[in-house]
Amino acid sequence: MRVLAMLDGTPADPLTPLIRVDDLGLTRGDGVFETILVVDGKPRELGPHLDRLANSAAMLGLPVPDRARWERCVQVVLDNWRGGGEMALKLIYTRGPEFGDGTPTGYAMGLPIGEKVLAARAAGVSAVLLERGYDPAIVARAPWLLLGAKSLSYAVNMAALRHAESMGAAEVIFTAADGSVLEGPTSTVVVASGRTLRTTPPSSGILRGTTQGALFRAAERAGWVTKVEPLTVRELKDAEGVFLASSVRKITRVHTLDGVALPETGALHKELTALYESEY
Amino acid sequence: MRVLAMLDGTPADPLTPLIRVDDLGLTRGDGVFETILVVDGKPRELGPHLDRLANSAAMLGLPVPDRARWERCVQVVLDNWRGGGEMALKLIYTRGPEFGDGTPTGYAMGLPIGEKVLAARAAGVSAVLLERGYDPAIVARAPWLLLGAKSLSYAVNMAALRHAESMGAAEVIFTAADGSVLEGPTSTVVVASGRTLRTTPPSSGILRGTTQGALFRAAERAGWVTKVEPLTVRELKDAEGVFLASSVRKITRVHTLDGVALPETGALHKELTALYESEY
Repeated sequence: MRVLAMLDGTPADPLTPLIRVDDLGLTRGDGVFETILVVDGKPRELGPHLDRLANSAAMLGLPVPDRARWERCVQVVLDNWRGGGEMALKLIYTRGPEFGDGTPTGYAMGLPIGEKVLAARAAGVSAVLLERGYDPAIVARAPWLLLGAKSLSYAVNMAALRHAESMGAAEVIFTAADGSVLEGPTSTVVVASGRTLRTTPPSSGILRGTTQGALFRAAERAGWVTKVEPLTVRELKDAEGVFLASSVRKITRVHTLDGVALPETGALHKELTALYESEY
Repeated sequence: MRVLAMLDGTPADPLTPLIRVDDLGLTRGDGVFETILVVDGKPRELGPHLDRLANSAAMLGLPVPDRARWERCVQVVLDNWRGGGEMALKLIYTRGPEFGDGTPTGYAMGLPIGEKVLAARAAGVSAVLLERGYDPAIVARAPWLLLGAKSLSYAVNMAALRHAESMGAAEVIFTAADGSVLEGPTSTVVVASGRTLRTTPPSSGILRGTTQGALFRAAERAGWVTKVEPLTVRELKDAEGVFLASSVRKITRVHTLDGVALPETGALHKELTALYESEY
């Protein structure tokens, strides 16, 4: 079951070719995207996702996304979905054809949640630390590096995941040149110790996490302390629990890091998942 | 005038949508490309370009490109071109549709040389130095960063060029975290001093230049010394001539760097261009 709607609100067949060979999203990775979890017809964090799409688009100098059009386009996908209770909703927005009239390409796709993600939600994942190669100090002074934009240029993220697989792990936690912890290729890192949740700051060039944001909101209401501040690898390894948060995988446990088993976090994972779910 | 041929050798209309919305080249920038100069029906450095396509594909873990099929596909574009003496020939090779049978997407496009490139060939360009954010020491130990692969994930290169434009320059020369000179977003840096040509080594994470390679071959035969070794910004600024080499722009002079006029290189540019042209 896959459902597609173009940004103009037209439903379309996802198997029919609809993109030109000179689309700059394809030839230059020149575009942005979002992935949103939909449960029982309700998109989670749609507002923050559309905010982030707009922020990524601004970083790439794309035309400002028309929010009302995106909301309508999303609604067309929701209205046509017959694939069950959960859906991964992808929004794609590119600079459009190189030899076109300057109109961006935009569409929304509804997809089933992948088997791997469902397995990871249930059993947790093994992760490896991989260097991302930059120092967080460069983020503010080099906006052309697009650090913190969710661009279509994700080849490095995909290569890192393949590298992890070759090492027998399913996930990656990137580290910066200064040794600090960054994010996963498609997730936000959250660590728990005592009644404190921590994640790394967007100023270090990572993507602001929508799922992490929802979890932190709920946790704060329940009396947890939350901190958004740089995190060392030592602190990651010493934490009571390490989690990867993302829209489709929700709050996934990291049970093994660089081949070493982390503390058992069954009860903690249950509590954090309940906090996150309480937002909806 | 634009000509398109799919990897199976079929000519196709470049204005008709031919790519699926779930092509991983589009949704993840997960693919590789080459741009080749064709003059009077003859592709320049086709062998080195196909070698580099294969190398980039290997770095991304893509299926090995079938050389004979690519050569046939290129020939279909050449046979159908009616756009004049020069053509930019683009090869695109992606991981294919995410929900497909695993077949990669491949095609070749023949395009006219852009006005900006023609102007740059004639008048030279103004360039700015921009940080690329990584230290060359990381290249060998972090293959997942794909440094030196010509991937479709070029959003940073495009953003750097837009940043240069906002500073009144047309081009960028990237520098590494150790202060050394790297490459342009779509070109190789060549400097000339005395009878020595220098460029930076692929081990620093840059793309091996096909046009620079042709120039160096010819220069060596003509008695020039050529060096492929790390280059400092000081050496760049003190050189007798700074050039950006790429397939479509050939050997383009940099006449201004960070707003400061570089030495006049009319005669030197003429000599290097003649050397490069002598290869064909």
